[in-house]
Amino acid sequence: MTAEKLHPDRALPAEPATRAAAREIYAATRDLPLLCMHGHVDAALLADDSPFPDPASLFVTPDHYLTRMLVSQGVPMEALGIPGSGDTPVERDPRAIWRRFCENWHLFRGTPTRFWLEYELLEVLGVSGLPSAQNADALYDEIAARLAEPEFRPRALFERFRIEVLATTDPALSPLDDHARIKADPWPGEVIPTFRPDALLYVDSPNWRADIDALAEMTGVDTGSYRGFVEALRLRRQAFAEAGALATDHGHATADTTRLSDAQAARLYADALAGEHDPEGVAAFAGHMLNVMAEMSCEDGLVMQIHPGVLRDHDPAVRASYGPDRGFDIPVAAEFTRSLRPLLASYGRDPRLRVIVYTVDETVYSRELAPLAGVYPALLLGAPWWFLDSPDGLRRFREAVTETAGFYNTAGFVDDTRAFLSIPARHDLARRIDAGYLARLVTEHRLSLEEAVETAVDLAYRLPRRVFRRA
Amino acid sequence: MTAEKLHPDRALPAEPATRAAAREIYAATRDLPLLCMHGHVDAALLADDSPFPDPASLFVTPDHYLTRMLVSQGVPMEALGIPGSGDTPVERDPRAIWRRFCENWHLFRGTPTRFWLEYELLEVLGVSGLPSAQNADALYDEIAARLAEPEFRPRALFERFRIEVLATTDPALSPLDDHARIKADPWPGEVIPTFRPDALLYVDSPNWRADIDALAEMTGVDTGSYRGFVEALRLRRQAFAEAGALATDHGHATADTTRLSDAQAARLYADALAGEHDPEGVAAFAGHMLNVMAEMSCEDGLVMQIHPGVLRDHDPAVRASYGPDRGFDIPVAAEFTRSLRPLLASYGRDPRLRVIVYTVDETVYSRELAPLAGVYPALLLGAPWWFLDSPDGLRRFREAVTETAGFYNTAGFVDDTRAFLSIPARHDLARRIDAGYLARLVTEHRLSLEEAVETAVDLAYRLPRRVFRRA
Amino acid sequence: MTAEKLHPDRALPAEPATRAAAREIYAATRDLPLLCMHGHVDAALLADDSPFPDPASLFVTPDHYLTRMLVSQGVPMEALGIPGSGDTPVERDPRAIWRRFCENWHLFRGTPTRFWLEYELLEVLGVSGLPSAQNADALYDEIAARLAEPEFRPRALFERFRIEVLATTDPALSPLDDHARIKADPWPGEVIPTFRPDALLYVDSPNWRADIDALAEMTGVDTGSYRGFVEALRLRRQAFAEAGALATDHGHATADTTRLSDAQAARLYADALAGEHDPEGVAAFAGHMLNVMAEMSCEDGLVMQIHPGVLRDHDPAVRASYGPDRGFDIPVAAEFTRSLRPLLASYGRDPRLRVIVYTVDETVYSRELAPLAGVYPALLLGAPWWFLDSPDGLRRFREAVTETAGFYNTAGFVDDTRAFLSIPARHDLARRIDAGYLARLVTEHRLSLEEAVETAVDLAYRLPRRVFRRA
Repeated sequence: MTAEKLHPDRALPAEPATRAAAREIYAATRDLPLLCMHGHVDAALLADDSPFPDPASLFVTPDHYLTRMLVSQGVPMEALGIPGSGDTPVERDPRAIWRRFCENWHLFRGTPTRFWLEYELLEVLGVSGLPSAQNADALYDEIAARLAEPEFRPRALFERFRIEVLATTDPALSPLDDHARIKADPWPGEVIPTFRPDALLYVDSPNWRADIDALAEMTGVDTGSYRGFVEALRLRRQAFAEAGALATDHGHATADTTRLSDAQAARLYADALAGEHDPEGVAAFAGHMLNVMAEMSCEDGLVMQIHPGVLRDHDPAVRASYGPDRGFDIPVAAEFTRSLRPLLASYGRDPRLRVIVYTVDETVYSRELAPLAGVYPALLLGAPWWFLDSPDGLRRFREAVTETAGFYNTAGFVDDTRAFLSIPARHDLARRIDAGYLARLVTEHRLSLEEAVETAVDLAYRLPRRVFRRA
Repeated sequence: MTAEKLHPDRALPAEPATRAAAREIYAATRDLPLLCMHGHVDAALLADDSPFPDPASLFVTPDHYLTRMLVSQGVPMEALGIPGSGDTPVERDPRAIWRRFCENWHLFRGTPTRFWLEYELLEVLGVSGLPSAQNADALYDEIAARLAEPEFRPRALFERFRIEVLATTDPALSPLDDHARIKADPWPGEVIPTFRPDALLYVDSPNWRADIDALAEMTGVDTGSYRGFVEALRLRRQAFAEAGALATDHGHATADTTRLSDAQAARLYADALAGEHDPEGVAAFAGHMLNVMAEMSCEDGLVMQIHPGVLRDHDPAVRASYGPDRGFDIPVAAEFTRSLRPLLASYGRDPRLRVIVYTVDETVYSRELAPLAGVYPALLLGAPWWFLDSPDGLRRFREAVTETAGFYNTAGFVDDTRAFLSIPARHDLARRIDAGYLARLVTEHRLSLEEAVETAVDLAYRLPRRVFRRA
Repeated sequence: MTAEKLHPDRALPAEPATRAAAREIYAATRDLPLLCMHGHVDAALLADDSPFPDPASLFVTPDHYLTRMLVSQGVPMEALGIPGSGDTPVERDPRAIWRRFCENWHLFRGTPTRFWLEYELLEVLGVSGLPSAQNADALYDEIAARLAEPEFRPRALFERFRIEVLATTDPALSPLDDHARIKADPWPGEVIPTFRPDALLYVDSPNWRADIDALAEMTGVDTGSYRGFVEALRLRRQAFAEAGALATDHGHATADTTRLSDAQAARLYADALAGEHDPEGVAAFAGHMLNVMAEMSCEDGLVMQIHPGVLRDHDPAVRASYGPDRGFDIPVAAEFTRSLRPLLASYGRDPRLRVIVYTVDETVYSRELAPLAGVYPALLLGAPWWFLDSPDGLRRFREAVTETAGFYNTAGFVDDTRAFLSIPARHDLARRIDAGYLARLVTEHRLSLEEAVETAVDLAYRLPRRVFRRA
């Protein structure tokens, strides 16, 4: 690849007949609008529509995909602009941070971060080259100049990216002020919240007791009892739905959905209010509440998203010094067949329910998720996520699940973005990989090209629209 | 692919040099006889040799691969001709069922079901097109006309398919009447039973107590004691062997083979007769009996087939309403290294024993199964099975096991068929995928073309013949 | 492939554009020196520099990769020259053993053993053909003649192989005499020991009590207390480092690294000295000591290598009759995220520490190892090892880890050799597979050819040099 511009065939299969088919399939999806149904962009970005700050603050410091790689090679967090609780002084000069990143560009060879950044730099910003030790300063200036132009503000990019809808992820107690500001604004962009109640469902969350009080205050319901707690959650879901939310989001430690009796749940809740809980009880209550959330989804129609199997803050000292989301969340083996059974046995054939499951443990694709999604109407397979949202990761997903679950039990691409500028890069990559996979089915005479094109459009656009009940 | 006829290169690799080699390798196996050593065709089909009924009863209603996909998209079981215990009226019109299926043909894109059905329709039945909403009725009539012709009766197809032998799967208590009818008939087709004693070895099976009495009656042995139970099983195995059986088949929850002392086993058996058992005891007794079955196989020469790791009837309400085998059996993580150790340590180097293991958890291929089969003479790797009997599933199997176990510790293809018409389609697919894998070894200069051709013939024909002691 | 000489493109991808790129990348690494940082060659081989014995003793009898395959097809150990404790007479004629192997050459189709042997025979020894039943005797004579020539002695081959350094694996109690002989010799070859203390850290090791006494005697430290034991280990590490060791090697049952309190550890140690231990205590002490080893590595700079997850001596009767390392060590499911957490939380960001982890359970590549190595500075991913040191095994490793950990958190190739002659074959294979993987990134426009060439050289040479602190 030349450093100056993106190759039109990037991430398509090399074999000529397959590439030719892939090009044709990709062409049908390249310019489709983006449905961004799951991600971590802050609504304030679009409510404010302020210019992006400097290159380091835009690309380096807040992106844990990027900082973790530099940290893995011995670069201190502080040198990347991340302050710690220790004595190490934090780098304040964005240019120095940017330079540090550019010097280490080779570390990203073969990673999706590299793929996204190439797109962001060359395609979104249209700068002249890729990072290197030599061009760090020049590139910094070039990017900074772009960011100062009005067409590189968030809303202008939102439109240029053809984002049809952008879902954020919001704590259950969020007042959704930024969403209200966007709604009140004549700007027509659609930005919607997603209900994420994890911190309330895990009774050992750091601020749980205070959050329960805040929940009572926000909803006007007495949360002193389990019954009140459940009712208050129902009202928050309703408030989210009224603010445009289409879905909930659940990042539990496991996929357990065992339903307790109301009496058992009420006892665990009362104990938690009294400050008493043990790990088993915490996990049991969270699993129970996931089941309750499914029941509520049947009633209010919010699509349920579950992504278990991550051990958060693997290095407790990093968490203590630098805070959460610093790249130290590490996957563990996941289990779905037994864990989801209570939920699916109760609601899995209820036509009102849609549950999308994500995993960072690929071993469950063919063993558990595809067989489950291939029979339960309520269950859909979420896109490869987090570490797996990568060229080969996306390809392995299709290879592992399609033969058992088909295409139509998957939920379409989810960009799971933090970095706003990476949104179109991620959708573009997924469309290319799906095109390549479909092209192989065509050249192996397992699908006609016409069917492949139709399927690609379904995966990129029609399927997520339908799954999230927009069509 | 044109809808009208199968492409000769389907499922072969796209890369031209590899495809050329694959074609040559496949050509050597394409017309070899079929050894169908494991499947679920009913012997009555060939004993009766009645014409197949209508297209819906042939292709849709009894095939859980097919119905589960339709169910996953919200089609009620009843609409597919499967009666439930509820109030929903069941569709009785086969034409309506067939139409429902045809309208949903797109759901099967990328699945092996699609691959098999294309073969069955275009190659076996020779109809003019593939299912679509438009041609549903015309296709129905076309198929129905074929099924009325004598050359589409089971025995005629058996011969046309070049089936050398067809093994059925039969409960230990089966009187094997249909097999006797076939044997008594001048028709030369070879149809043999397989001994499946699961229901007797799990003391919590629904009819266990009655079955134990029936076992006593069939064998003339008092099954009131563990010793009698074991002796009666030995006699049933003998009866199966006399009826032509070459193998046993064991669908246990896990691969555990821990041997109990005779006293422990006798106590668990006595308790079970008295109606007392707990899950641990049930599992321990079943694992013990698997070990006992291996010992008997050393004596009577029946090849032992083990396929653990499936959670049956994931949705209990489906089982209660629609019965078993409705597509709600879901894999769980499997373990073989520790589980098979007792069996292998006792009999794994006994030249009289052959044990074939199957899995629906692909993670054990390279981690456990290939290393085990690559050293124990008695152990052989069964073909990818159930959800994994698919183009990419078959390919991943060879890629994961060959480097450690080679080709000659695998047992050849097993079609695991329910649908009689799909038998040749499944063998054809396996031969194509093996040809493609071998062709890659050739183009990567890891194997000569001559060796590849010889290996392909071994995999398709000579190896299963030898493993099942027919040669 | 012709039997007479190796094809220059073996193990490179078939697709022409990818192969062209792979050739160019491979050409840059083909002739680089070999860094053999982990293996099982006996230092005596190079200290003595005696001619290799006959072909059977060189290629067949001591190689468990090879004997296990023959055993899996029913060949008795004794027929391969391995004496057992039973009555079966052992074959003493090397020619008969060699013939037995040649007759079974087809068993190795598709295996890395075949790939290595082709290289060893055609490239290293330059014989005229590959094994077959027909040419067994002629080939035997041809090999035997080669082995008698001075340029096929170990040191001459060491030089011809361009081995820059060869690390052996040595028990903690090894006097390292052979290493001393090599050092004292004017021959300039660099052969260094590796510290392997497993037998001391597992208090249920067969000779543990005697070893503890020997440890005291070697170090002059009283090992009657836990504190003395730890100090004695520290001194042995120091002795190894002085003899040139750069690393330690730990083959534990699991990756557990839970640190006990000194009091707990001292109690378990004291109990063990008194002959009292249970499996939980044995495992807890071993896990604790792995953590202690990491602490010592911070101090003395020895690179730590951990490879858990193998159940040794699966068939106890084989161990009892034929001894260890007969091919009956079988992998089990591995876990790293939780197991390594204590070690990594304590030392994972310590710039003095380097820990390389190996696995024979591929499921942890993308789920656990790449995410961990992609953030912890101390952690590096070891090469695919044992059963996975194969064409497809090596490829799957890069595909599974690169997208999350990049290339620069891997530690370079490790040949893990027993058979001295296979060393260059193994490095050659790894370089070819890495070239093929990098070439795919180039043809998919994810990396420039120039970057790919640089990366290939890093993987083959610069990276292991840096990781093992030689550069």
